[in-house]
Amino acid sequence: MNPKRIVIIGGSAAGPKTAARVRRLDPEAYITIIERNQDITMASCGYPYYIGGLFDSRDALLETATGVVRNTGYFKNYKDIDVLINTEVTRINRREKNLELSNLITGENSTLPYDKLLIATGSKAKIPPIEGINLQGITPLKFISDADYLRKVRDKKEVKKAVIVGGGLIGLETAEALQLSGIEVSVVELSERLLPFLDREVAKLVEKHCRSKGVNILLESGIEYFMGQNNQLTGVKLNSGVELSCELAVIAIGVTPDSTLAKNAGLKIGETGGIRVNKFMGTSDRNIYAAGDCVEVINSVSGVWDYSPKGDMANLQGRVAADNMIFGDTIRFPGTIGTAIGKIFDFSAGTAGLSETAAEGAGFNVETVLNASTDKPTFMGAKTLISKLTVERSTRRILGYQCVGKGDVSRQIAQGALAIAGEMTLENMMSLDLPYAPPYSLAVDHFLASLHMMDNKLKGLFRGISSHEVYQMHLDRKKGVCFLDLREVDEVETHRLGIGELFIPLSTLRRRLRDVPPQKNTLIVCYCLMGPRSYEASLILRAEGYTNVRVMEGGMMAWPFPREK
Amino acid sequence: MNPKRIVIIGGSAAGPKTAARVRRLDPEAYITIIERNQDITMASCGYPYYIGGLFDSRDALLETATGVVRNTGYFKNYKDIDVLINTEVTRINRREKNLELSNLITGENSTLPYDKLLIATGSKAKIPPIEGINLQGITPLKFISDADYLRKVRDKKEVKKAVIVGGGLIGLETAEALQLSGIEVSVVELSERLLPFLDREVAKLVEKHCRSKGVNILLESGIEYFMGQNNQLTGVKLNSGVELSCELAVIAIGVTPDSTLAKNAGLKIGETGGIRVNKFMGTSDRNIYAAGDCVEVINSVSGVWDYSPKGDMANLQGRVAADNMIFGDTIRFPGTIGTAIGKIFDFSAGTAGLSETAAEGAGFNVETVLNASTDKPTFMGAKTLISKLTVERSTRRILGYQCVGKGDVSRQIAQGALAIAGEMTLENMMSLDLPYAPPYSLAVDHFLASLHMMDNKLKGLFRGISSHEVYQMHLDRKKGVCFLDLREVDEVETHRLGIGELFIPLSTLRRRLRDVPPQKNTLIVCYCLMGPRSYEASLILRAEGYTNVRVMEGGMMAWPFPREK
Repeated sequence: MNPKRIVIIGGSAAGPKTAARVRRLDPEAYITIIERNQDITMASCGYPYYIGGLFDSRDALLETATGVVRNTGYFKNYKDIDVLINTEVTRINRREKNLELSNLITGENSTLPYDKLLIATGSKAKIPPIEGINLQGITPLKFISDADYLRKVRDKKEVKKAVIVGGGLIGLETAEALQLSGIEVSVVELSERLLPFLDREVAKLVEKHCRSKGVNILLESGIEYFMGQNNQLTGVKLNSGVELSCELAVIAIGVTPDSTLAKNAGLKIGETGGIRVNKFMGTSDRNIYAAGDCVEVINSVSGVWDYSPKGDMANLQGRVAADNMIFGDTIRFPGTIGTAIGKIFDFSAGTAGLSETAAEGAGFNVETVLNASTDKPTFMGAKTLISKLTVERSTRRILGYQCVGKGDVSRQIAQGALAIAGEMTLENMMSLDLPYAPPYSLAVDHFLASLHMMDNKLKGLFRGISSHEVYQMHLDRKKGVCFLDLREVDEVETHRLGIGELFIPLSTLRRRLRDVPPQKNTLIVCYCLMGPRSYEASLILRAEGYTNVRVMEGGMMAWPFPREK
Repeated sequence: MNPKRIVIIGGSAAGPKTAARVRRLDPEAYITIIERNQDITMASCGYPYYIGGLFDSRDALLETATGVVRNTGYFKNYKDIDVLINTEVTRINRREKNLELSNLITGENSTLPYDKLLIATGSKAKIPPIEGINLQGITPLKFISDADYLRKVRDKKEVKKAVIVGGGLIGLETAEALQLSGIEVSVVELSERLLPFLDREVAKLVEKHCRSKGVNILLESGIEYFMGQNNQLTGVKLNSGVELSCELAVIAIGVTPDSTLAKNAGLKIGETGGIRVNKFMGTSDRNIYAAGDCVEVINSVSGVWDYSPKGDMANLQGRVAADNMIFGDTIRFPGTIGTAIGKIFDFSAGTAGLSETAAEGAGFNVETVLNASTDKPTFMGAKTLISKLTVERSTRRILGYQCVGKGDVSRQIAQGALAIAGEMTLENMMSLDLPYAPPYSLAVDHFLASLHMMDNKLKGLFRGISSHEVYQMHLDRKKGVCFLDLREVDEVETHRLGIGELFIPLSTLRRRLRDVPPQKNTLIVCYCLMGPRSYEASLILRAEGYTNVRVMEGGMMAWPFPREK
């Protein structure tokens, strides 16, 4: 049998991973990667840190762990893989099983036959068709050339003000990077919150953190047009009428799958615009596979086709595709569960599984709980963690977990991801033997505490109310509500909400029950710093016959609104 | 119905947790905790950090997250729980359902009736019956009084040399604490390795790290006797004949369950010496439950009764016991999986599930793989992680995962723990959607890379050999083996093993095949810095017809032996 001809379109993440894996599985195969641009296997998730000056060597984005730049020579010498850079695939001839190529430097055209083809054409930055979009000073952050441009902005120190269009992870990472360069940054977001993968109350905490770092956040704001002089950006006009002057605008409103080539070849495209693949990463043509940002995948929690472009998924899909291209369809890709994480100034923010909104949208009957605590004991330098857990009521299965804060969010989200992917329930998990020592976690890890709180909630012991509801009651000057702050006197002197609250430290509550409004059906909203004391208070009051007692979830630590002090 | 009388023996971790949970479940119950000592709910896992001077306030070990010391007044005021300190339970009268108490200050005796009883008597430090054991200057690190003593040693700065007897986690944590105080520390360990929960090759890396920090490690060494003058410790004599002078010795050879009271009451005791409990944390008396360091539990991976005393498990068992004491037996404790973690100088070291040795002992047919890499991309300040994965061959189920290094071991072990507790297999896990961004992990997380390597091994693509075997071959001057270093020239100039190796950079291997010994059955041991290049080389050589090619697992990064440079 002749050696297999494996051709891969795309040299970013999924493509090179597939090529490298194919080489390991089949030492005889002819392997060719075709890439439109000059550079290959860029660590594109690292661009914000390069722009922000965390490191200065552009090559670091292209190097292996031992410092070898992954260029065409590297692929040839280390892996016996041919890489054609600056080369565009203009057409896939499925019947002839070949590709039409065009060299973007020489203009030369050629054809390349394949036995198995992988499409890994990636994604395109969404660019809104707004007046002024072509002015100098407006860029997405998609290609390494964009990172080069923004890094030059940093180094030149001429730009004073920048606007980031889009408040997703890349938008906020870029906001931080530019602010580190001394640029005054505004983030303009069309929806009512940052990081749309988070539920509102969690996203609000990220917003508060960004504002505390001096970033100007404008929500529910679209760009009406870009303003310019001499073809150079000078500002943006928002649909609210507000004008922001700026010399730089970064468009970060997301990406769409680059599936044109597949579509033109008659391959099946999904509703999200991504190439539709089966469990084996195969397209509707049995000799063509696809992986990475150009495909859509099943969200295995909701069961719905999803567009979830991420570097780690691209690598994992590439590995699966490689095995199946060489050995036939043997390995399955299980889909994604929507995991994401990002660093935003001193915060980390992450999610796994479905948000409450997404879970309800997918038809689940859910319960949620917000947990504010720390990652470690106070004496070990505790940092905050605030998380939201979503479970299905009937099965008590964990559907989603979000976490933000200065603490070790990464471990928290990893734990959530495994619990969700493993279809684990509260029963499996509540007594889980997790790694515990004071440098790493509390004796009852934050994630386990969330599960315990959920168990209490489903049993009716814990009755919650969100800070948003509480704040709205305060704004509405709602009558007959007792806001009860259970913290100690010294804590109250330092910080307080100022929403007309009653102060009774938990330590005195049993003796001071007469100070609580006597009507047993009064709505009493208990709160403290994080939650445990108000939970205890709610149980004391309920035992006294109060029928309408709620605990404000997350306490003051998760309160994102203005407070008296 | 009269309020329930809930009595709890033991005021450390499991006892107070159970008491607090009982109060939340039953506002009417009379709850009493009986504690032999003065202090209660000490964060005993924090002692080494107090001794080492990470923080100076002893109260920090006794405080809630909001800074309230958990003393008798706290329990009364916040939780309406009575705590009798300095009080010993001398007898449990099961028929009468009462306890005989003795006040250790006044000598007064009394009885206390119970409806439900929790035994949480904890553990006792093992003290070897060795000559000189009662000399001044010898202490375990078990009670807060021991921590007080060692903290005074630190503050006085009189002790110059200390010997730690026992190379487990507490021994090494204490070694670090004392060394931070400027004391010269030796660790004496009876077995052939530190941290017995780790397999040999992983433990060896911890040993190397401790030695690099200047700790004197003596393995396979027992104490013959303690030497003294004027009743004061002056040194230890080892069974090897070696004498170590020291003014301080810390006994850290483990703990045994304190189950005497339960035993005297005729309750069933397990083979490990711990109180035998059922899935509901109930003892052989239906009105008596037990939790924490005094019980033995099922290891749910091996199915064997195990003694696994840990603060987090004590809390989780206490929560289960409380529910069952109040509502009847409704909540199950699933057992442990042997998870542990500790900080050892700049290293973290952790485990979840079974070691290879333990898995084989439990009758599993296993495969293992050692993975050396980093936790993050190089440009984000990568730190090392070295891990060992153990799976059952037939089911491909994950049985054990160990990890050490300067990187984020905590997340790695948490991932392993969830995979093991969830009885997950390679198939479930290899494409897992974990949180990825450059500040937190590699695009293919270290844990996933271990799974991929295992998959390659089980498929026959990856054929490993341990550094121990390689080193032994070198020591034995074994003939006819080709040790092949695949690293680049500049790397070889900086570090090399010096075991008679052949240097052929992977980038030139395909062109230099004639430099490899021509006999196709030559044992060729490939290695590089971490592993990927030697793996690729092994596949190239096998494709050339070499039949006996191995990859040294973990590469130079996991090499714990002396090297040429």
